[in-house]
Amino acid sequence: MINKTRSKTEDIEFDIDNLIPGNSVDCVIFGFENQQLKILLLKWKFSNLWTLPGGFIYKTDDMDSAARRILEERTNLENIFLNQFHTFGNMNRNLLHKAFNEKKLDKNIFYSLDEETRKWISSRFITTGYFAFIDIKSSSPKPDYLSEKCEWFSIDELPNLVYDHNDIIKKALDYIRIQLNYLPVSINLLPHKFTMQQLQKLYEDILKKKLERSNFQRKMLKLGIFIRMEKEYTGSANKAPYLYCIDKPKYIELIKNGIGFTY
Amino acid sequence: MINKTRSKTEDIEFDIDNLIPGNSVDCVIFGFENQQLKILLLKWKFSNLWTLPGGFIYKTDDMDSAARRILEERTNLENIFLNQFHTFGNMNRNLLHKAFNEKKLDKNIFYSLDEETRKWISSRFITTGYFAFIDIKSSSPKPDYLSEKCEWFSIDELPNLVYDHNDIIKKALDYIRIQLNYLPVSINLLPHKFTMQQLQKLYEDILKKKLERSNFQRKMLKLGIFIRMEKEYTGSANKAPYLYCIDKPKYIELIKNGIGFTY
Repeated sequence: MINKTRSKTEDIEFDIDNLIPGNSVDCVIFGFENQQLKILLLKWKFSNLWTLPGGFIYKTDDMDSAARRILEERTNLENIFLNQFHTFGNMNRNLLHKAFNEKKLDKNIFYSLDEETRKWISSRFITTGYFAFIDIKSSSPKPDYLSEKCEWFSIDELPNLVYDHNDIIKKALDYIRIQLNYLPVSINLLPHKFTMQQLQKLYEDILKKKLERSNFQRKMLKLGIFIRMEKEYTGSANKAPYLYCIDKPKYIELIKNGIGFTY
Repeated sequence: MINKTRSKTEDIEFDIDNLIPGNSVDCVIFGFENQQLKILLLKWKFSNLWTLPGGFIYKTDDMDSAARRILEERTNLENIFLNQFHTFGNMNRNLLHKAFNEKKLDKNIFYSLDEETRKWISSRFITTGYFAFIDIKSSSPKPDYLSEKCEWFSIDELPNLVYDHNDIIKKALDYIRIQLNYLPVSINLLPHKFTMQQLQKLYEDILKKKLERSNFQRKMLKLGIFIRMEKEYTGSANKAPYLYCIDKPKYIELIKNGIGFTY
């Protein structure tokens, strides 16, 4: 990675000579914890605004590599499979003066940047959205140089987000909802052993609707990708629900072929 | 549309002051004719290379509007539903010197452009791909200012394409193949009345595999979106296959809900 620093305020750094102008990437990182679907967000310094982990593309980066690098730098997460889902190119999507006027942004954030950098960063950006499913427990996200906090939020309780980042999250969810019709991708979010109730809650969070228990379980088990684990003998009547794990080879085959309508 | 001309060679025009740098859109336009799936391509002046209809984004354009404008300017097609499918951001995807070295491109194409324009157009571009299904008969495509020809090609007989445009077409087809698992979108490509054989050939072209006739017909008719038309009385034994048309309200409902795995 190139580390030449063009401009510095407090510890905010930009390297505009080595970045391509007008293009950025933003990552929607999903996790599942306490039976809730969550998204990882960063809080910008000098503002009351939260943002998706995102950033710019070096001239020496492919865009996909930039997304992986940004995710790694911002969140300490490596080797995550990122899935590109949509590119956002509305004319006014990231205009800073709009954010200033709406008083969502403290001008301090760019106070001591040199004029060239200020101009560069204030120009129109087209951003490409990527999403990933990760295991919250194995991650240790850290804020980046632009941010003072890094936290997981339930998708039902998102804070104020910069620019069109709410729309970006909505679009990621729309994309995943459609994907669920032919790929059970999101089961990556579950722990190694899980109950059908946990699986159902995850699907309900993504689909944003209540599902009927027995119908859901029947359809899911019919996929043939879950292994039911034997209950451990406890000596007393065992009312605990069955635990399941994923049959990896069968899961991989299903992901390859898809479910639903086949010809 | 802004028409200030910054640079002109023969009749090649660029308006770089009013365009955003580093971003473009490319359109994969599908049609179906003589039982063949086809794609609309333009042939660049001063080269033996073909290209997808594409272009740049004005500072006053949303990216989606730019795609619609470009499609209209290049092909005379209006009010077409364009579907964004992927953004291509590899570092070397459009390097002109690479095309020159591979002798695919005659340097004449940029000979008399001023240096600023040459630099602008030779820089790295990230392009967003859109696709559309159109009725070939009702279209009258024309070459744009960069092109000398505009033709439909069968997807099995594509000519040499610039840059990564072969990959862009491949990605569009991958996207549509997956979509076919839950949405019968491509039936827009069929004429008003069609046979099951025509429908099957269209699906075979998209899926790139032979399908079993009776199984295909059974699955398709089960969707409930086709109306079988009465055969006209000809006085002799009628061996002609049945013609079908689309039940529009049912089709729209199906597109809204999707087929395949429902929860």
